[in-house]
Order: sequence, then structure tokens, then C-alpha cells
Amino acid sequence: MKIIVDAFGGDNAPLEILKGCAIALSENDNLEIILTGSESKIKSVAEENNIDISKMTIVNCENVITMEDDPLSVRTSKKDSSMAVGLRMLSDDEGDAFISAGNSGALLTGATLIVKRIKGISRAAFAPILPKSPGMFMLIDAGANADCKPEALHDFGIMGSIYMERVMKIKNARVGLANVGTEETKGDDLHKEVFKLLKDESSINFVGNVEGTQIPFDSCDVVVTDGFTGNLILKTYEGAAAAIMGRIKSIYKKNIITKLSALLISGELKKLKGEINSDVYGGAAILGVRKPVFKVHGNATAITVKYAIALTADYVNTHVIDEIAKHSENSKTVASQKKADIN
Amino acid sequence: MKIIVDAFGGDNAPLEILKGCAIALSENDNLEIILTGSESKIKSVAEENNIDISKMTIVNCENVITMEDDPLSVRTSKKDSSMAVGLRMLSDDEGDAFISAGNSGALLTGATLIVKRIKGISRAAFAPILPKSPGMFMLIDAGANADCKPEALHDFGIMGSIYMERVMKIKNARVGLANVGTEETKGDDLHKEVFKLLKDESSINFVGNVEGTQIPFDSCDVVVTDGFTGNLILKTYEGAAAAIMGRIKSIYKKNIITKLSALLISGELKKLKGEINSDVYGGAAILGVRKPVFKVHGNATAITVKYAIALTADYVNTHVIDEIAKHSENSKTVASQKKADIN
Repeated sequence: MKIIVDAFGGDNAPLEILKGCAIALSENDNLEIILTGSESKIKSVAEENNIDISKMTIVNCENVITMEDDPLSVRTSKKDSSMAVGLRMLSDDEGDAFISAGNSGALLTGATLIVKRIKGISRAAFAPILPKSPGMFMLIDAGANADCKPEALHDFGIMGSIYMERVMKIKNARVGLANVGTEETKGDDLHKEVFKLLKDESSINFVGNVEGTQIPFDSCDVVVTDGFTGNLILKTYEGAAAAIMGRIKSIYKKNIITKLSALLISGELKKLKGEINSDVYGGAAILGVRKPVFKVHGNATAITVKYAIALTADYVNTHVIDEIAKHSENSKTVASQKKADIN
Repeated sequence: MKIIVDAFGGDNAPLEILKGCAIALSENDNLEIILTGSESKIKSVAEENNIDISKMTIVNCENVITMEDDPLSVRTSKKDSSMAVGLRMLSDDEGDAFISAGNSGALLTGATLIVKRIKGISRAAFAPILPKSPGMFMLIDAGANADCKPEALHDFGIMGSIYMERVMKIKNARVGLANVGTEETKGDDLHKEVFKLLKDESSINFVGNVEGTQIPFDSCDVVVTDGFTGNLILKTYEGAAAAIMGRIKSIYKKNIITKLSALLISGELKKLKGEINSDVYGGAAILGVRKPVFKVHGNATAITVKYAIALTADYVNTHVIDEIAKHSENSKTVASQKKADIN
């Protein structure tokens, strides 16, 4: 398997990206890594930091899309950037997947315009895996589409379900719709309509609406939402966790007694931090495009990159995209059959 | 000041409601409390639990709106309930404010249809005060209106600002718009339009968009949002806090060493729990109606009720509603003046 990695995406590039790739290669014999970015810089950083890049192929390109760049620059002024080059290589079948910790908007735009959407899927979505108590869940869409049509959320439910079952090995994944109450009649017009579509979708295990208080607990495996609400759910979730963990940290630092208290449970606290930490899931798959594209956290460390590569390898190996495409094709056949029956 | 209290609203009514009222009366000499609900039940619960209700007036009504009742029942089948009777008394100036821990939808419907909206305000909103690090902030609307027009969110910003400045004593309260990015161009069509309206509103201190990660920290004092997103922000916030605190509790219970660790910082942990606990702010004002209506948490204890009464007394004393009405009147004058100038 060949994974193309944007060596210049994110706050800690290229150092942490290179380190993460080296760890991933050491753990997976079937993996090949193609780096996009400035060859001279990659080589000098690797040398300075003693990172073995002998097994990585480098495709040289000097330009980089920054966090401030317009998302469309991936197709216009920055066609020669590490991100744009990687996406074109993926589209041309020169690799099996592409991962980048760079500008999310540009990556989404590039995935949609260069790699292109799966036939029948109207919108691509960010689909991060997040911790819950216990386990983890997928939030889809976490911010790709501010304005969504009901059909798009219906597709998110199907794509999320397939991904969770295949990549995360969750049998009969429960799909829930983020809403302001559990009853079918709850929510704004968009979500009332989506409820009906998901309820009628026989290929998924739809468990109905889920409220915000239930999301951090074990209410379902896939939380379907529009990108506007999803982004605010995701970030409020992260913010609340950071605020509470910050308060706990400040308590422990207070004096000798609180420091002793912290010492007594340091192993457990580390475990909790690990559970809350989203590094393990590395970021978000972009679901709905023709080949696997994975958005790694912007502040990714080597460990995050390593996990992201492993997850992306599973994404390739489990043929999630073929399954989504097959489903999308079937739905259209059913829809046109229904139409023919009516006429 | 006369506050009308629904003695039969919420999970712990009437016991905790009566206890809370008794504490509130003992702390405020200028307070009169009128209870609505079954006189015989109130008297027997008070006697059994040794609660002094001698200073409370009871307006007898036997019916109760339950959590399962349709919100409209407050105007139809349950006109004789403790909630409906209280709201009519408020509307008829038999009290200065009304508080209830009962069915939120019914209370909102009753506040809108019985107490009625302030002239010029298109929607009433739930406006809870929530903890942040440090301090607190208002989230408006936290769930009253699933579908909102831009003008409604503009009104929420003004109402929230007035409430925070007068009741919570925050000078020059910062108003932020919950959004998926800080730039003016971010968000769906609704929020882009709202950004413009808030930016042009000279009477408030608009600080721009705030992202979910910033909300739990000190980004602003009033977070403006539509009721659909607001409800999910509120409940995800509560859920995330509950999940983490639950995990910490389970760590401390694990063995003798972790129990010792907990003992060493028990005072600090209690303080943290108190900060996160929303009891102190008691629930949510319903802003936009002609007289103060306050929704207390459904699971309110006596302490929550006490705080809710104190906050409601401040809501009355600081003439928030007069100020909102004056503002709404001025805006209309300005708008019609502008229109006249154009014609």
C-alpha cells in the first residue's frame, strides 16, 4: 500500500510528520510512503534529527498552502503546493490514500475538486472519531458544509455507518441524528426531514434523535449532523474537556498536599488524559470522495501522524469507498425503479 | 416584591420548591411569595417536612402540567394548572415575576401566549447563565426557537447584553456570535446575515464570531445563537462536563490509594464541582416577554430554587424589561425614520 503524505501540512511540519512516517513504516512492512514537499528541506530536517527516511520517496515541490490561504488556492495560485501535488497524484492513482495536517478548507476543496466526489454523493464531509464514555463515536459532518440539504445528511448517515463497521469494526453501528429532543417531531425543518429519510433507510441501524447530553455517553456510534451544528458540537466538546482538565491541573499544582494527591493517582490521570486526547484517532476522514483523504489535526505530533497513517491504511484495506459507491448506485436504481413504477 | 412560584413544576416538586421558597424568604425581607398548586398537598408536605409556609400565600389549583404534556396544553386542556394560573396572575399584574421548574415548552408557550412578547421583539428566548473559565456567560437562545430569522438573533444579542449588564453587573458586556470560524465570512447564510446586523448595532459591544473551543473560556459574556444550535451547544457542554466528572469520580473510587488521593483534595474537588454545577444560576430567564418569567432546572433542589428566586428578584429590580422595550421602541423609530428619509 502506498500512502501519500503532505510533509508540509500543519503547525509541526515537517519534523513531526517525518517522525510519524518513520514510526509508521517501522510498524508496517506492507507500507510505502510518498512525501510531497521541498526535497532539500525534508532531507536536512531528517538529517538534523536523525530520522531514517531511506524508505520514503520524495516528490519535490517547493510551495506550501498556509492556514491563511484561501481554500481555492489549492486549484489556483498554489497548484504546485505539497497538498495540491499530493491530491493530484492520488487522483492519478499514484497512491492509495493522501493525508495532510494542513489547511482544512483547502484539503476539503482539493478532495472535492481534484479527487472528486463518489457518483451520487452530493457532499463530502469531515468525519472525526471522538472519545465517548465508554469507547468512541463518529461525528459527521463536523464542519465541511455550513448549509446542507436533507439528502446530504442522509448520505452522511450511510457513509458513517459503513466506515464505523468496516474500519472501526463496530457491528451493526447505531446511527443517531443530533437534535434538540428525542421525539420524531423535534428540531428545525431540515432535521425533521432528515429524520424521515434516515428512518426509511433500511441499510442502516437508525436509533433516532440524540440530544447533546447523550453524545458524550454511549447513545450511538455515528452522530449525523449538518456541518454548522457539527462544528459547534465538536469544538464545544473539545473546549469543555480542555476547560475542565485545565481546572484540575491548576488544582493539583496548588500546594504540596494537592501535588501529593496528584502523585497518588498519576497513572490513572495519564490514562484519562489519553482517553480524552483525540490523538489516537488522529483527525478526520473526508468521506464522500473517490479515494481516501484523511485530515490530520493541525497540531499533530509524530504519534498523531502514526495513528492517522494506520487508520488510513485500514480505510484503504476495508474498501469503504467501494461499498459507499455500490450503495449509492443501488439507491439510484431503486429510486429510478420507483419513479418508473409510479409512471 | 411579589414572586409567583409554580409549586408543582419539576421532578422534585413540591418538596424542594417549598424548601427553596422558605430559604429565599428567610434571606430577603422584601420578598413575598405566592404559590400556585394544590393547597391541601402543599400544606401536608410542609407539615410533614417542618417547612414554615406561614408567610407564603397559596392560590389553589389542582391540575399540573407534566413533562409529557403538549406545550399548548397551558392554553387548552390544562388552563387550570399551577403553571397556567401563575402565568395568568403575572399577566394580570398580581405579581412581579413567575418561576417554574416545569415543562419548558409549556412555560415558553405560556410566557409567549399569556404574558405576551414585548412590542417589537419577534421571538422569546431561553437565556441560561453557564459557567466558563473564569466566570460565567449567557447562552441565548438555548432552545426556544428551532428555526430563527436573522432579526430574532439580533434581538437576542440586545436582550442578552442588557440582562448581563444589569442583572449580572458586567460592564460593557461582550456579545459574540457562535460560529464555525472567527472571520466575518464564516457560517451558513443565517449566521452571515446575523453577523452584519450585530456589527451594525451600536448599542452593544459586539466582539465578532466565537468558535466552540472558545465558549468555555473567556471569549465573551453573551453567546448569541439560534435555538437549534444553542440547545446542542448547551447540552453537549453539560454532557461533556458530566462525562469527565464521572470518569474522575470512578478513578477516585478505584482503591484505597485513589481514595486517599481524593481525600487530600476533597475541598478543592467540591469547589470545582460547585463551579461546574449550574445550580448557582438556577436555570434560564425567558427573555423577550412583557414580565419576568424564569425557567428553573427540572431537577432543581431547594438551593437551586433559592438562587433562581434571588436572580429573578434582581431581574425585576433592575428593570431589564423596561430597557429592552425602550430599545425596541427606539429601533423602530430609527427604522421608520430611515424609511421616511429614503421616501
